[in-house]
Amino acid sequence: MREDNCIFCKIARGEIPSTTVYEDGDFRVILDLGPASKGHALILPKEHFKDLCEADPVVTAKILPLAGRIGKAMKTGLGASGFNVVQNNGTSAGQTVFHLHVHVIPRYEGGPAMVGWTPGKENAEELERTADVIKGAL
Amino acid sequence: MREDNCIFCKIARGEIPSTTVYEDGDFRVILDLGPASKGHALILPKEHFKDLCEADPVVTAKILPLAGRIGKAMKTGLGASGFNVVQNNGTSAGQTVFHLHVHVIPRYEGGPAMVGWTPGKENAEELERTADVIKGAL
Repeated sequence: MREDNCIFCKIARGEIPSTTVYEDGDFRVILDLGPASKGHALILPKEHFKDLCEADPVVTAKILPLAGRIGKAMKTGLGASGFNVVQNNGTSAGQTVFHLHVHVIPRYEGGPAMVGWTPGKENAEELERTADVIKGAL
Repeated sequence: MREDNCIFCKIARGEIPSTTVYEDGDFRVILDLGPASKGHALILPKEHFKDLCEADPVVTAKILPLAGRIGKAMKTGLGASGFNVVQNNGTSAGQTVFHLHVHVIPRYEGGPAMVGWTPGKENAEELERTADVIKGAL
């Protein structure tokens, strides 16, 4: 399945050129044009899914093993000392293209910590209540 | 395999109590004690792997489909409008516990954008060179 007006469908299928680092039957991995760091890559499934909630688990099962391979190559090839894997779902989560994609962002010694958040505090009771709500919805 | 002094091994196996939202033979999903947002969950494999590079692909294949289920439950149960999936590898990437784990961070309408980065710029030639290096290391 594809979406006619989806730019990532067109890139994943090679109809729009991209800087490709890897391709197989299910995925194209390209370099991000606005990289968080040198080598920032995007894993694009060739099939169109809006996000992780709507994606076929048979396809998503292949993504983290592939991200591990890409990350390892960033360490070996680019001298990265680590990498972040980030996948955003929904506008409020920063998703801007509504075709499931996974960022693999190499990190370098001494480089800024670009992916992060400020930890909050919740007491044990509040945590339990929150957990019960999630469990109930699973 | 487990590591004797790994706190996430102990939590995943239930030897240290946690607020658990999901458990199966491979994983325990707990709520983060320093949440980026209400419901911030961690997917912990019961088997010890330092990071994605060292992990068994048979195990990591199960993580994104599970993250999708957890994220869906955050939307249904907590009223989240989206969620981020984040997995950090290495100190420079912000990894602080060296037992592979995946963050599922619910996001709420009007909430701050906590997971993100400043996009950089690279010219086409530089992108091609970087891609060649990664391809060569894959």
